[in-house]
Amino acid sequence: MEVASTKRKPLILVTNDDGIEAKGIHELVNMIKDLGDIVVVAPGGPRSGQSSALTVGTPLRLTLIEKKQNISFYRTNGTPVDCVKLSINQLFDRHPDLLLSGINHGSNSGVSIIYSGTMGAALEGCIIGIPSIGFSLTSHDPNADFSPCRAIVRACCKRVLEKGLPPSVCLNINIPATPCFKGVRICRQAQGYWTEEYEHRIDPNGKDYYWLTGHFMNQEPENEETDEWALAHGYISIVPSTCDQTAFSAIPKIDDLLSPNNLNL
Amino acid sequence: MEVASTKRKPLILVTNDDGIEAKGIHELVNMIKDLGDIVVVAPGGPRSGQSSALTVGTPLRLTLIEKKQNISFYRTNGTPVDCVKLSINQLFDRHPDLLLSGINHGSNSGVSIIYSGTMGAALEGCIIGIPSIGFSLTSHDPNADFSPCRAIVRACCKRVLEKGLPPSVCLNINIPATPCFKGVRICRQAQGYWTEEYEHRIDPNGKDYYWLTGHFMNQEPENEETDEWALAHGYISIVPSTCDQTAFSAIPKIDDLLSPNNLNL
Repeated sequence: MEVASTKRKPLILVTNDDGIEAKGIHELVNMIKDLGDIVVVAPGGPRSGQSSALTVGTPLRLTLIEKKQNISFYRTNGTPVDCVKLSINQLFDRHPDLLLSGINHGSNSGVSIIYSGTMGAALEGCIIGIPSIGFSLTSHDPNADFSPCRAIVRACCKRVLEKGLPPSVCLNINIPATPCFKGVRICRQAQGYWTEEYEHRIDPNGKDYYWLTGHFMNQEPENEETDEWALAHGYISIVPSTCDQTAFSAIPKIDDLLSPNNLNL
Repeated sequence: MEVASTKRKPLILVTNDDGIEAKGIHELVNMIKDLGDIVVVAPGGPRSGQSSALTVGTPLRLTLIEKKQNISFYRTNGTPVDCVKLSINQLFDRHPDLLLSGINHGSNSGVSIIYSGTMGAALEGCIIGIPSIGFSLTSHDPNADFSPCRAIVRACCKRVLEKGLPPSVCLNINIPATPCFKGVRICRQAQGYWTEEYEHRIDPNGKDYYWLTGHFMNQEPENEETDEWALAHGYISIVPSTCDQTAFSAIPKIDDLLSPNNLNL
């Protein structure tokens, strides 16, 4: 049991989808380690593209790797969401004051956040009621320079620790991999889709197989409201994201479309 | 290449997260097989809790199992989202007119749709621009009686084939496992969370492991706007769901919370 210190320093849960050995999560911890008691619970290896996936039908393991001063590191065999759920259930005597996910190696912008394990973990925190932030750097380099993230990470963590976030809302923060970003923009996610998604190959036995590939087609590259625009123009993008998938604005249309008269049940 | 017939009957893609052998997907196909050309592309085994997860770093297989008249069955080694992406990329000369996911063995209601592979597939269709519906029956019985689903499945499929759905919106339809439901309600998803989520055990080597368990705590059981209320009171619930996770209503608050003056970057 991770019992928070008697001084009730903020309790900060840190996870990611690149795994416990990724540079991004250690850089994140170094950036915020003076802000509270830090508990890192991360997958044992890469879990990119895991979205909000849960491990079902297989038992989970939770292993303490290292504890030094105010920082503990745990490894699980699960997904980012498993890391959040399992640690909340097993490690703490109270809810963390802040959940951080990342820093992801590579952007999570546009509709691709739906596949993101980084954001899966942040959305899970959001469901549980913990102020939660996902951070991503727009570079897939395993040895990327995370120093451009430091100021925004610290500023956002301090502010959210102080003020919290609205119910059912977490933050998706993408940081351009450049030392000179132009500023910060609060955005909506860009609309788009993926194209040429698979490469078809033939294995040595003559059977087909397919590798995921493809690229994102931004349907609105000129729209300054979007995260893709912000990132393409050198800004940090912050998208308030919600764990509630109800399409509220569509309810009246669907009410009409599927009204008893129209359904003829 | 699955080339649609020259008469351009509707092309209907069917998938699920319970796997190609589950009763629910075969019942679904039987209910709608007169409505168009049916292509089933489903995982080779259960993929419950897979959300919008993608297979990354492992090649995918796509195997034709059976083709009879207007119905083809394909199996993949991927997730529900992989099934949708791979089939759209490899099997068709045009986009399907309708994507159906299910019928799931067990409900997908409240915030649990975020973990649902059934809804992961429907949301993927939604991103691609295909009118998409996820169906779930509120029974986990592998031999459940799916006949209560028939009328609503057919009515909704016909209506959506005729009229389409709004952009970025798909339908999450849950059907009570009872022959006498009271009616149909267009709902929002209920707010809630899970509790007592893991059972802790010790393995024969003395090491800890954890099984996912727990139950959903509905925070608003009396709220008639919610899917949980509808299902608890014998109604079919239909939640318009969106693939856009932007918390639009929170943008002004976050604009203020993280304004330049407040961030002090």
